[in-house]
Amino acid sequence: MKKTIKVFAPASVTNVSCGFDIMGFAIDYPGDELKLTIKEKPGITITKITGDDGRLPLDPKKNTAGVSLISMVDRLKYEKGIDIEIYKKISFGSGLGSSASSAVASVFALNEILEKPFTRKELLSFALEGEKLTCGGSPHADNVSACLMGGFIIVRSIDPLDVVPIDVAADLYSIIIHPHLEISTADTRKILRSNILLADATIQWGNVAGLVAGLMSGDYDLISRSLQDVIIEPIRGILIPGFNDIKNSATNAGALGCSISGSGPSVFAFSKTKPEANNIGKAMKKVLSELDIDSDIYISKINKQGPRIIK
Amino acid sequence: MKKTIKVFAPASVTNVSCGFDIMGFAIDYPGDELKLTIKEKPGITITKITGDDGRLPLDPKKNTAGVSLISMVDRLKYEKGIDIEIYKKISFGSGLGSSASSAVASVFALNEILEKPFTRKELLSFALEGEKLTCGGSPHADNVSACLMGGFIIVRSIDPLDVVPIDVAADLYSIIIHPHLEISTADTRKILRSNILLADATIQWGNVAGLVAGLMSGDYDLISRSLQDVIIEPIRGILIPGFNDIKNSATNAGALGCSISGSGPSVFAFSKTKPEANNIGKAMKKVLSELDIDSDIYISKINKQGPRIIK
Repeated sequence: MKKTIKVFAPASVTNVSCGFDIMGFAIDYPGDELKLTIKEKPGITITKITGDDGRLPLDPKKNTAGVSLISMVDRLKYEKGIDIEIYKKISFGSGLGSSASSAVASVFALNEILEKPFTRKELLSFALEGEKLTCGGSPHADNVSACLMGGFIIVRSIDPLDVVPIDVAADLYSIIIHPHLEISTADTRKILRSNILLADATIQWGNVAGLVAGLMSGDYDLISRSLQDVIIEPIRGILIPGFNDIKNSATNAGALGCSISGSGPSVFAFSKTKPEANNIGKAMKKVLSELDIDSDIYISKINKQGPRIIK
Repeated sequence: MKKTIKVFAPASVTNVSCGFDIMGFAIDYPGDELKLTIKEKPGITITKITGDDGRLPLDPKKNTAGVSLISMVDRLKYEKGIDIEIYKKISFGSGLGSSASSAVASVFALNEILEKPFTRKELLSFALEGEKLTCGGSPHADNVSACLMGGFIIVRSIDPLDVVPIDVAADLYSIIIHPHLEISTADTRKILRSNILLADATIQWGNVAGLVAGLMSGDYDLISRSLQDVIIEPIRGILIPGFNDIKNSATNAGALGCSISGSGPSVFAFSKTKPEANNIGKAMKKVLSELDIDSDIYISKINKQGPRIIK
């Protein structure tokens, strides 16, 4: 058995416009990296974290990756010890599943080094234990599921957990802009109304049905028509400076649709081609530049692989 | 050109559990029949209606089929006259799209006899004019769309109208029980709450996404898990005597799922095989028999054809 493994776990876009709390997909980059080493002395130790500006706790019980590993080790009744090093590449509070990525990286790494005692679906429950730390105990499975399973996923149900990978026939590019602002998931959840109109909900699930059908049948026009969120985006969009202009600029540059990634502030768009994706990225970045807000652009296909071993 | 044509337009099941106002499918039977004859003298005349116990108006402006035809003739600037005879085979207020069937039959018949000046999608708008009569002016496109397009459809949006046929990989039998009770669509709409919980809506659109994915991928387990309606069925089910027992009996007899057809009182279930469908039908009927309520059972595959010419 190898004693050391290094893995990459991708960032993910969730909600995907109309699919609040039930949809997500993995992207090619950025993604957190994690090095895991088996040692004889029992216990889990986080020996190093980089890229977090010193903000993440080294105590495994307070760290997403640590908590995920602890729940997996408990289930395995694993008796050896584990050291991990975490290389954060996804910004905190970016809306790109930063904590989910670290949680997935840790359980994926241990599963690989132990020669896969668990399926990816089984790993979900361990990674979710870590993710609960970030969400304050509320169930929130979309980032973890997208990151771990790869591709496009539906979280049909949280309780019982039912994650469905869907077979996407459309060959999509995703364009993501991450404005250098931080929004906490807890805050963006608080501003949502707990009551909504049945009429709005009906519009929303019509679009959800259309989006799933469009993705599975490869109907780009249907995908484009279905990328409408009448419930969450109108509220959360207010928190993102220039959101409406970013969205309009993406659409004018040929995007099939554009909405908030997770709870923001990152914004994603889809396009059919790479040149369009490049133009859309530039157009979105220009809006933020004019507001004096720095930003990163990520252009990627849907990442069907999920986490992977790296050198 | 032929002067006379006779057509059949199928009944339809809408809402389909979680898909309130956005989903429907056509069944093989029952279906309304309509005979249309071109005459030289301008004007639309309904010369006969059978199967309605004298309850439907012969005045074309007050009759679903008549209003649909009028809107089509207006668009065509058609100068000849039309006589129609309507043979109602779908009970009023059964929840099986009785009025939609007559509306579709009339426009389909005229379109066929005129050698298809319109596509089926174009015929939708005419049939919807007729359907509006029944729904008191509120848009309600699911029955008309399912009946006219055949197969399984999503009404992604009402305004603008966007009906999406979906390619169902699952080979399903539908079992429908029609209790001999009458419920008006207007009444069943009034009892719905206009405000719902976001948490419930999220559960609902998770199931909508799962149902579409299950139908398109032929995943029977996923279809079964997704056939859950946490918003409409708990309210409308109260209006159907013995509903919970009918549902339990269907599930115990092997149904993939069971819910209300349209706004009821008909109830539908799905099964994978014909023998299961027969058992489910018997089990459902037994519940109503014990309540001294007569009922009809219809067992059918999903009708992919929609309306058709008959002899």
